[in-house]
Amino acid sequence: MNEREVLKWLKMKVPYAGDDCAILPFRDTQLVLTTDMLFEPADFPKGTTPYTMGWRTVAVSLSDIAAMGSTPLGVVVALGAPEFEQEFLEEVLKGLQDCCNHVQAPYVGGDLSRHSVLTLVSSAVGESREPIKRSGAKHGDLVCVTGQLGRTAAALKLFANKKLDEANELFCFTPRINEGLSLAPFATSMMDISDGLARSLYQMSEAGGVGFQISHEKIPVTREVQSLSSTKMERDEMALYTGEDFELLFTISKTNLQAAQRIAAFRVIGEVIKDGIFLEEDGKITELNDRGYEH
Amino acid sequence: MNEREVLKWLKMKVPYAGDDCAILPFRDTQLVLTTDMLFEPADFPKGTTPYTMGWRTVAVSLSDIAAMGSTPLGVVVALGAPEFEQEFLEEVLKGLQDCCNHVQAPYVGGDLSRHSVLTLVSSAVGESREPIKRSGAKHGDLVCVTGQLGRTAAALKLFANKKLDEANELFCFTPRINEGLSLAPFATSMMDISDGLARSLYQMSEAGGVGFQISHEKIPVTREVQSLSSTKMERDEMALYTGEDFELLFTISKTNLQAAQRIAAFRVIGEVIKDGIFLEEDGKITELNDRGYEH
Repeated sequence: MNEREVLKWLKMKVPYAGDDCAILPFRDTQLVLTTDMLFEPADFPKGTTPYTMGWRTVAVSLSDIAAMGSTPLGVVVALGAPEFEQEFLEEVLKGLQDCCNHVQAPYVGGDLSRHSVLTLVSSAVGESREPIKRSGAKHGDLVCVTGQLGRTAAALKLFANKKLDEANELFCFTPRINEGLSLAPFATSMMDISDGLARSLYQMSEAGGVGFQISHEKIPVTREVQSLSSTKMERDEMALYTGEDFELLFTISKTNLQAAQRIAAFRVIGEVIKDGIFLEEDGKITELNDRGYEH
Repeated sequence: MNEREVLKWLKMKVPYAGDDCAILPFRDTQLVLTTDMLFEPADFPKGTTPYTMGWRTVAVSLSDIAAMGSTPLGVVVALGAPEFEQEFLEEVLKGLQDCCNHVQAPYVGGDLSRHSVLTLVSSAVGESREPIKRSGAKHGDLVCVTGQLGRTAAALKLFANKKLDEANELFCFTPRINEGLSLAPFATSMMDISDGLARSLYQMSEAGGVGFQISHEKIPVTREVQSLSSTKMERDEMALYTGEDFELLFTISKTNLQAAQRIAAFRVIGEVIKDGIFLEEDGKITELNDRGYEH
């Protein structure tokens, strides 16, 4: 089985799986809980600084909290490393604390082990009365994304080209906690784009039993993708299929568009339809490929 | 730096570190949050079944929740494995779900990655109005432990001797959630014994600014230690210095002893003194060595 098949199978076995976080009813509210494992070299290409590793590790979990429209209450990190070098650990700690501080998430500690492979696992707990799920999109709703896509794809190219400063900067993305909280009252469904826009649309479609029609020209693409790609196919690969951009993908009703736009920055990229996932480009409508980043 | 020095250094850098869980104030109560990384071969000797791996992974985090005298609200697991074999994953999932069910802790999902080294990280969130800390022991309090020590040391010997069924059974310890909750109203300080009794006493001493005098003959030792050791020194090594027994070490005032004994099973092993950590044996009092399990 590949990761996707296994996750599908686990979903049937494990209550609450399928959303970005598990939802735990607690008193009159809900806690949300998530965990993410990152390691060398898969998640940290050669040239990733310890600071970036720390930042990105917690950013990934905080992005899951953001995707539920929830307030982060605490983040812990388990770190396994072959050597405990103080300078290295200082930098990792600084990165993860800076990222947490950036979105007012309390970093509260963790675990440390001597592991043969550098491995970082962050877990975060958050809270909201009504967490936003992947399901809930309604036929006729608008499909929207925050920020710009292709950021991680661009960073990976920059790492490969040894442009390490730019690459590290792009790798330190801001988890969309503020946007998630602002949009929560309006969003009918929400998730973060971890496996690419295309795969995320399929995941949201499966969760909500709806389809999507996306307009190619409306997809916001980060400017680095333009300068780092030489063909349209390459640009599409970076913006639609590479993933790990951790922007929010969400749906809102047309009547809420203006109100939502007043409090958060995002782009409308298409519309919720009955079923199927289609891309409109230059007046031509084709089915979007169901593929994306495989961990 | 070794793990111990690093943890000491991190403690100064990270708020809340030093207890078994981080404490997050939430409304009129406190959430507690913990994470633990386990991996092959350090934590899972050859012969450990996938079921045991799953059980032990969540048991370690639940033990941290227990040590705070808290109620578990949810557990997540990040699993990295070289191969995704359904049978293997089924067994891991069964083990971790069985352990969670055993102490009424909800297992709510996790993350899955293809990692070169089998690595399991569990994170758990719990709640209590007044989490019990490692600090708080008072001069004259009684020092107590739940269960029997040496269980993991015995299991390691059994793994080495290829007595795999017995070894796996001993490895699947029950996290002391029920005892932690029962003892919370009485305990002045509490922690779980993860690095051995000796090291744990030193940790509690440092946290609370007190000392301990322990009576050797009162230390409860699991019967497997008797049959698997040939010398007294070996028995002491297994029961006092090996660790990962995950029993609760706690202190209570003498006036609460009877009330506490009515609701939980434990043994009094000594008394809180002003400072120093001493072992009384056959009428002789010696300083206890500050050493234990190094991860």
